[in-house]
Amino acid sequence: MRCRPAHDGIMSTAISPLAPASFPDMPPVDGVRLATAAAGIRYPGRTDVLLARFDAGTTVSGVFTRSKCPSAAVDWCRERIGKGRASALVVNSGNANAFTGKSGRSATKLTAEIAAKTIGCMPADVLLASTGVIGEPLDATKFAGVMDRLAAEAKPGDWHTAAKAIMTTDTFPKGSAAMVGMNRTAVTICGIAKGAGMIAPDMGTMLSFVFTDAPIAPVVLKALLRDGVENTFNAVTIDGDTSTSDTLLAFATGAAAARGVEKIARLSDPRLASFRKGFNAVLADLSEQVARDGEGARKLVEIVVEGAVSKKSARRIALSIANSPLVKTAIAGEDANWGRVVMAVGKAGEPADRDRLAIWFGGIRVAHKGARDPGYDEAAVSAAMKQSEISLKVALGLGKGRDRVLTCDLTKEYVAINGDYRS
Amino acid sequence: MRCRPAHDGIMSTAISPLAPASFPDMPPVDGVRLATAAAGIRYPGRTDVLLARFDAGTTVSGVFTRSKCPSAAVDWCRERIGKGRASALVVNSGNANAFTGKSGRSATKLTAEIAAKTIGCMPADVLLASTGVIGEPLDATKFAGVMDRLAAEAKPGDWHTAAKAIMTTDTFPKGSAAMVGMNRTAVTICGIAKGAGMIAPDMGTMLSFVFTDAPIAPVVLKALLRDGVENTFNAVTIDGDTSTSDTLLAFATGAAAARGVEKIARLSDPRLASFRKGFNAVLADLSEQVARDGEGARKLVEIVVEGAVSKKSARRIALSIANSPLVKTAIAGEDANWGRVVMAVGKAGEPADRDRLAIWFGGIRVAHKGARDPGYDEAAVSAAMKQSEISLKVALGLGKGRDRVLTCDLTKEYVAINGDYRS
Repeated sequence: MRCRPAHDGIMSTAISPLAPASFPDMPPVDGVRLATAAAGIRYPGRTDVLLARFDAGTTVSGVFTRSKCPSAAVDWCRERIGKGRASALVVNSGNANAFTGKSGRSATKLTAEIAAKTIGCMPADVLLASTGVIGEPLDATKFAGVMDRLAAEAKPGDWHTAAKAIMTTDTFPKGSAAMVGMNRTAVTICGIAKGAGMIAPDMGTMLSFVFTDAPIAPVVLKALLRDGVENTFNAVTIDGDTSTSDTLLAFATGAAAARGVEKIARLSDPRLASFRKGFNAVLADLSEQVARDGEGARKLVEIVVEGAVSKKSARRIALSIANSPLVKTAIAGEDANWGRVVMAVGKAGEPADRDRLAIWFGGIRVAHKGARDPGYDEAAVSAAMKQSEISLKVALGLGKGRDRVLTCDLTKEYVAINGDYRS
Repeated sequence: MRCRPAHDGIMSTAISPLAPASFPDMPPVDGVRLATAAAGIRYPGRTDVLLARFDAGTTVSGVFTRSKCPSAAVDWCRERIGKGRASALVVNSGNANAFTGKSGRSATKLTAEIAAKTIGCMPADVLLASTGVIGEPLDATKFAGVMDRLAAEAKPGDWHTAAKAIMTTDTFPKGSAAMVGMNRTAVTICGIAKGAGMIAPDMGTMLSFVFTDAPIAPVVLKALLRDGVENTFNAVTIDGDTSTSDTLLAFATGAAAARGVEKIARLSDPRLASFRKGFNAVLADLSEQVARDGEGARKLVEIVVEGAVSKKSARRIALSIANSPLVKTAIAGEDANWGRVVMAVGKAGEPADRDRLAIWFGGIRVAHKGARDPGYDEAAVSAAMKQSEISLKVALGLGKGRDRVLTCDLTKEYVAINGDYRS
């Protein structure tokens, strides 16, 4: 379980202290076959290509980075995702194929063509994702050397191996699964992710792929994904930086139809309620694992903002706190520095009344009504700050807007991972 | 010259390697008298109060933090600056009097009353600034013990001592001066500043005070300041965090009128051109010194963005680059990591065309037309990255918008200063 990715330089090799105890026990998803290979994209001696093959009729939807300078793979997917149809997914680690100009576009085309030819589909039905160095040409011909074997060996259910193949600076593979009852049978939702920093040492990207055997129309899958990311992947921040390649794809093979599950074609379908719950739980679990593997992270930090004028305002304030280097370094130093929280609330630009603010660390109120809480127990707060999971709550006292984001602390290790690797 | 502030904990005590060789030789400003004292606000054995006394007729204008949770001193100044009149300035270090509720408001009132009574003016004509811990009550009665002596001993011209009295985690005092010809005589512009982090270890604030003997109407001073900060203090960022207390005040004593300098009452006054040049040079010098004393900084980084659709857009992109932890750590690691620059351009949300982007480090083009510059000399770039001053230029190729911001790198020392001081 405790695997360590091969790195090309001096990096953190220890597993994050916030890692789950083990990779979860994840069932196969009918209609999805997986295979991995070592194509030598960048790292010798490790797997760096994942192929997922889908049964006919598989639908897909995706959400992508908001970066104005996206990777070639993101462009490729965005141009094709509208059809809502997928035959295969090819993911490589080691090279992000971002900022690679015309050669980047050629590389995506060639990769899709190699996969399409091997498995017998249209190149447009091959989705792509790449993570790794930015600005280095991706030699897509390397996929030709491994694609036949990948296609032949693809088999259901080895999520752990798949999750490992897509890692870059991640210190542990990330997976999550849920089972949901539907038409008197169970459908499965399985997801894998990679994260670490938003752009890790010279490498990019949060990637996540979620698979289900439920039969879901593209329009429904799209809505599920759009709603689902709002309080999961979009509510996690490591360092506020946004990769050129962030990609989250959801695939629904529909294989459960063979077990009597009828197609979900409308958002009003009553079966969606429980499915949505399972789907969102997988997204929440995966995105929390990304925060737990934040580069150099030693503490998982949950930031709750309530009493804001709206949820949107609460989100902005929570992100301002979560992305503040001064708040993050204070937490690394196990210091319940609410003065910096006030600073971060103040700089968010959202409605806030200093004299109504209250702040809690670890459930202990340290400030209220615009001043230090005279009653707070310093020893209890110190003990709370020594935990590996820190809760920070801010009440604004203005309205009913509430939100929650996850982040991690900012440690010297973050700087070492991101600044020292060339030395 | 190489002074070290007394710190209450484990902090960086070495002078920033980016510090100027010495404090500048600064002349007195007619109509300004200065005195400092050790009032024991927080640190034993160091000066922590600055009094500046102004001759009758002194005008004032100010700009303040945009924080929605400003300090009591900022509130005090904002409510009174509109009159444009000043008799005294009292600055203390050690306690920011921020997030101190009603006691904070009482403390500002008491401080102004103590100063007003001693020097014989209205409390409303006393401007205040505080920097230090947030959330701790400021005991303003301590000023009573030193004010008589401060008022009596105040004398022209000891800028170095004044600059030292307002430091918190600064590793060197910051001052700058300019002389400008006007009506066949010279007027003087002198400024001091303190900075370091936006919120230093448990302490806040960028403070700066600029003084001139030119006779300038408040409305003109206000416009000068508003325009002057745009490309100076507003174009410097250490960590993107915004203090609750940032304050820049400009005082014009008008004492040069005695030497025949006529009052500048209108923005159309032709004498303003040269005065503005000197005034802006002082602001630029002081704000650059703030960047040179960024917490843990080892490199001063100038970021130029050109070819944007507007200056505003260029500013946003430049700040996105300057505040990116991944760009800043790469520079700390002496790595010309233009992939992260692409990331930061992309996340700014401003118009950008990946395939037109060009990026230079140290004047050497490393990327153009959306890909690595095939011709760039890695050794030359490596040599440039080893310098203590790094220039980073991005050309967007879209329009004529250009801007420049200053920042510093993000080092382990920053994390140590901001995270270790309680341990």
